[in-house]
Amino acid sequence: MKIEKDDRLILLTNDDGLYAEGLNTLTEVMQEFGKVVVISTIESRSGMSQALTVKMPIRVKLLKETDTKRIYACSGTPTDGVKIAVNQLLERKPDWVVSGINHGANASVSVIYSGTMAAAIEGCLYGIDSVGFSLDNFSAQADFGPARKYVRDIMNSLSRKRLPIGICLNVNIPSCPDQEIKGIKVCRQAKGNWREEFEKRKDPMGKTYYWLTGIFENHEPESTDTDEWALSNKYVSVVPVSIDMTAHNFIGDLKKQFKNV
Amino acid sequence: MKIEKDDRLILLTNDDGLYAEGLNTLTEVMQEFGKVVVISTIESRSGMSQALTVKMPIRVKLLKETDTKRIYACSGTPTDGVKIAVNQLLERKPDWVVSGINHGANASVSVIYSGTMAAAIEGCLYGIDSVGFSLDNFSAQADFGPARKYVRDIMNSLSRKRLPIGICLNVNIPSCPDQEIKGIKVCRQAKGNWREEFEKRKDPMGKTYYWLTGIFENHEPESTDTDEWALSNKYVSVVPVSIDMTAHNFIGDLKKQFKNV
Repeated sequence: MKIEKDDRLILLTNDDGLYAEGLNTLTEVMQEFGKVVVISTIESRSGMSQALTVKMPIRVKLLKETDTKRIYACSGTPTDGVKIAVNQLLERKPDWVVSGINHGANASVSVIYSGTMAAAIEGCLYGIDSVGFSLDNFSAQADFGPARKYVRDIMNSLSRKRLPIGICLNVNIPSCPDQEIKGIKVCRQAKGNWREEFEKRKDPMGKTYYWLTGIFENHEPESTDTDEWALSNKYVSVVPVSIDMTAHNFIGDLKKQFKNV
Repeated sequence: MKIEKDDRLILLTNDDGLYAEGLNTLTEVMQEFGKVVVISTIESRSGMSQALTVKMPIRVKLLKETDTKRIYACSGTPTDGVKIAVNQLLERKPDWVVSGINHGANASVSVIYSGTMAAAIEGCLYGIDSVGFSLDNFSAQADFGPARKYVRDIMNSLSRKRLPIGICLNVNIPSCPDQEIKGIKVCRQAKGNWREEFEKRKDPMGKTYYWLTGIFENHEPESTDTDEWALSNKYVSVVPVSIDMTAHNFIGDLKKQFKNV
């Protein structure tokens, strides 16, 4: 694949691995927008957040190349993949980093744990317009057909107007037939958390081990301006995500609290 | 260890592992404030961010117990450790989650990658007052002596006044003699990122592999209200960190942008 000066260069990744239908769908749609480089793992790496591989070396393999597409397998996390693509593999900085389409929603606090969103955040840290897409369906056989239109609409909008520095998008798409989706809703991250998070078991030697599991609890189910509300009411939720985690509103109070310390 | 109704119950963790001097220092200081439960890994788990262990079971082992202290080894990430302690191991929800003292600073965007800060963020997600402490020195032999006073001061302040829901603290301490530290400065997260992030090598079979490395670049070295500035000017930086990553200021513009989509 030769990347010309006028080509839009798009880096794609996910945390469900190279054989996930969500990434396949995203790759097909994004080829309408430019030259595509895909980097991901063979196996899934869900729940990796912004984790980095610091104690092991990272391996990368070029799996496939055509005139419009290049696919790399990377042994690292989604964040490693974006870093190594931008720093080592790509001829130039990509115009977009697009991640997903994740099998399963990444609304509310899931943005903090999600490898899919971490990849978008990583792109954003490099000053690249970045979006993470997720479908509200964990199944490997989920139908990504209705999602195509919304991926197209959102990326079309970004091709007309860039995102501000330091902000990327977290897009969650309901899992239902096309005609039931009510449209796009710009939202904020819902307040919530996970509870009852472990299943305790005994191994064949009688020793205890735990599996991570749990139930998400929306702390504000009545609020209509959250991503959780939008998604459960069949809207595509779009949350602008900031890489600045400072609680700016609280700086003044905290200064008073630490004044005499 | 028996946890009485009036005891302050403090959960401690880090990402440098159970044998790190930073955790040892933190454990000693925090025993002045209440009953302490320590959970961490045997080996270090740096750069883990908010990663979860979803594909492997988690093992926990009680290593030591006295009248005032309990120490668990956990096979998971710092976030897993907090989750399993709160959900499975502790008699009740802890009053504080305190993480660190990390060997190495976690200022600026490092808050996003840090396992130490992830543990504090995890505590915060459970509605627990949580703080991550880091010393600006990566060495295993770093001198944590001067840090003790500031850990004490900050936790004393929190014992008088709770943090707001959804906000935890990211505290970075300069690595210099006590008399050179100028005091505590409440700051915001500096804008910056990492560059030249990989070292490319050949293995004995002649195949390429990469090590993650890199140089941090502060995008605003002149700004005096950032954590990077404070730390390099020998202040203890305190940044209030929000678990809500929504870029609230951009919601209005984004609504306009997606109005006709």
